[in-house]
Amino acid sequence: MRIVIPLFAHFTALDAIGPYEVLQRLPGAQVTFAAKERGVVRTDSGVAGLHADATLDEVDAADILVVPGGPGTRALIRDEEALSWVRAIHETTRWTTSVCTGSLVLAAAGLLDGLDATTHWAAVETLEKLGARYTPERVVRRGKLVTAAGVSAGIDMALALAALAAGEQVAKALQLAVEYDPQPPFDAGSPAKAGPQVVALFAALRG
Amino acid sequence: MRIVIPLFAHFTALDAIGPYEVLQRLPGAQVTFAAKERGVVRTDSGVAGLHADATLDEVDAADILVVPGGPGTRALIRDEEALSWVRAIHETTRWTTSVCTGSLVLAAAGLLDGLDATTHWAAVETLEKLGARYTPERVVRRGKLVTAAGVSAGIDMALALAALAAGEQVAKALQLAVEYDPQPPFDAGSPAKAGPQVVALFAALRG
Repeated sequence: MRIVIPLFAHFTALDAIGPYEVLQRLPGAQVTFAAKERGVVRTDSGVAGLHADATLDEVDAADILVVPGGPGTRALIRDEEALSWVRAIHETTRWTTSVCTGSLVLAAAGLLDGLDATTHWAAVETLEKLGARYTPERVVRRGKLVTAAGVSAGIDMALALAALAAGEQVAKALQLAVEYDPQPPFDAGSPAKAGPQVVALFAALRG
Repeated sequence: MRIVIPLFAHFTALDAIGPYEVLQRLPGAQVTFAAKERGVVRTDSGVAGLHADATLDEVDAADILVVPGGPGTRALIRDEEALSWVRAIHETTRWTTSVCTGSLVLAAAGLLDGLDATTHWAAVETLEKLGARYTPERVVRRGKLVTAAGVSAGIDMALALAALAAGEQVAKALQLAVEYDPQPPFDAGSPAKAGPQVVALFAALRG
């Protein structure tokens, strides 16, 4: 099971590492982090950097493609070279997937035209402008296209993919391995649950 | 708010990136990934590598210390140089914290003697041998020592720390930022919930 996770400047670390941490534990998994150039790729914060072991050119197929999101997708959706790589890999995949604003990249590549998909709650308008039909679910699967909501949703998506790839029992064993028994101290993970004051504070903090 | 996350060979990526993704968004946060040597530090899988921007020697204080876990802790708990660094930083912190088997490192450094703490469910015996009192909770806070359960529990811990550091409203805004509205497709995140068959499969997959 070849799992390819492309990295690009200003990606969001958890978008990539959440699914990686589950999928790398699949029996027979071979995960590759790839980028335009081999080496350290900096995240949106600048203070975290993940190493890409392969160039995009070196990767010509994947069983699972996971496109992470982050502020760097703003440039990526206009990067014809990257989009054409995404399209080429998509031809070879069992599942083409995204986390957070990674779905904007799939949409810009033309893979979500008229299709149900999700993204980070703050990027819904952009996703729809790029031709997808926003669906407010944690994980949206339509055929081999699987999109997850913002940042942490990639963990939920990876468990769903693990079940498709290796069965529910294995998926449950992976959930147990990463002790994913979530108990957030607050219930503010969506705009509706957080309420308008917290949404306004989010916008203020983001600046 | 200086947040320091030490990296070491064979750490578990999500243990570090879960808390990082929340804490880096705190107003005024300065996150530093540090290791014995500057450069890429490989995780337990070998296929992911995070860059350490500072050496341990260069870091002499932290407001929040986050020690991740992973198979690499087996060596770390016998590494007197690393343990003495942990003790020295602990003297300067507001919160000394761990995720997963990172608590074994805090215990080996003598910081959890007779104290309630948690760890990955499969490492409970080792934690107790090292002098801590295992407490089966997602996040255990005793004074300035805060320990989280396995791997993904670092996200829950970071939200609790964010509330302590900057108030509940900010913590909720960070939860919203990473859209942490967990909806795992299965309920198998603890041995009790997963049941004996899945626990046995976990052990078989781990090999």
